[in-house]
Amino acid sequence: MVNLPSNLKQISLFLERLPGIGEKTANRLAFYLLRLPEVDLKEFAKAIADLKSKTKLCRHCYNFTETEVCNICTDDRRDQSIIAVVESVLDLLAFEQGGIYNGVYHVLHGRIDPLNNIGPDDIYLTQLIERIRELTNPPNFTKVSAGKRINGLKEIILATNPDMEGEATAMYIKNQLKILNFRLKITRLGYGLPIGANLEYADYMTLKKSIENRNGY
Amino acid sequence: MVNLPSNLKQISLFLERLPGIGEKTANRLAFYLLRLPEVDLKEFAKAIADLKSKTKLCRHCYNFTETEVCNICTDDRRDQSIIAVVESVLDLLAFEQGGIYNGVYHVLHGRIDPLNNIGPDDIYLTQLIERIRELTNPPNFTKVSAGKRINGLKEIILATNPDMEGEATAMYIKNQLKILNFRLKITRLGYGLPIGANLEYADYMTLKKSIENRNGY
Repeated sequence: MVNLPSNLKQISLFLERLPGIGEKTANRLAFYLLRLPEVDLKEFAKAIADLKSKTKLCRHCYNFTETEVCNICTDDRRDQSIIAVVESVLDLLAFEQGGIYNGVYHVLHGRIDPLNNIGPDDIYLTQLIERIRELTNPPNFTKVSAGKRINGLKEIILATNPDMEGEATAMYIKNQLKILNFRLKITRLGYGLPIGANLEYADYMTLKKSIENRNGY
Repeated sequence: MVNLPSNLKQISLFLERLPGIGEKTANRLAFYLLRLPEVDLKEFAKAIADLKSKTKLCRHCYNFTETEVCNICTDDRRDQSIIAVVESVLDLLAFEQGGIYNGVYHVLHGRIDPLNNIGPDDIYLTQLIERIRELTNPPNFTKVSAGKRINGLKEIILATNPDMEGEATAMYIKNQLKILNFRLKITRLGYGLPIGANLEYADYMTLKKSIENRNGY
């Protein structure tokens, strides 16, 4: 077995640790890096070295941020009375790219997944409960950091993924909120056929939901 | 559109420039990096920053190396009289991982591809011709850096890919070597059905070659 230069080997082995990247892809990527301009590589290296120290979690919603509070939580134009609970920042980005949602978020950074030993305490769930508690029992003149008064909390949208773990997580959160007796509207994302779908290839559960959730036409 | 922290955004945009990585994958990888230990990220950053300055091309075969001459060219146990001409170091690695080839290599770092404006002068072809010239007309006691005497060159294996550009490159090199009248055996990789293949799904050209190259049994 030929020895790659140690630097190249090190980069390749590191890339191999990333999800979805195998040995051959890692090598191909490492070799591709060699062709990029030196200055770009140095900048990338600096960004990687500073990544963890420069990236914080928003103290309200746990989105990634450079400041104490993220730019969604400080945005005056957004409806701070609706919180969408998502599993990951990637899910948050999916909603944001669509520009279809004007409330705020709470990022769990995971989902309840007993098979992988991830329980309610391993995700940002107690923080959600605490946040809801503060927002539904606000002392007079509670302020968010943008300086806007919070007029209570109206709705929690459980926006976890429509798969087994996502459903379990949504169900768990719903039960917790019920037990704690918060006066809140709790909703779940709508199910049905995705736009552009082909009925022939749709799965049984999706078809079932599309019948159950049929609309007047 | 939400703004990711600038560091995270920078890393994501950089990853997006790599082959086969789109925006969503780049985001997913960048977020994954956040979960890795700080020390690993720093080491990776250092390797990236030093990548270009620490990686050289072997001055014989243009394989990646840390030293002047790569460890294949300096390996006494290898047959220095056979050179396999490959398009990339990835192809070299494929042969090496198999452990099926004991000669040395010449890496072209590309292939002749007129549609993408890559001509014979854009790959390490003149270097190959020059290397062959030196090896076939050796002054007395020519030495490679390992200190071993070269007993001339016997064979050039054109090991470019079996696709259009790879074939064109092999053909071009063959013609050049013919014109320059080197006394050399020139061979091309064998064609036929890949092991484990299914005849039903084999393409026409492969089937044709498998008939032409049939062996006694």
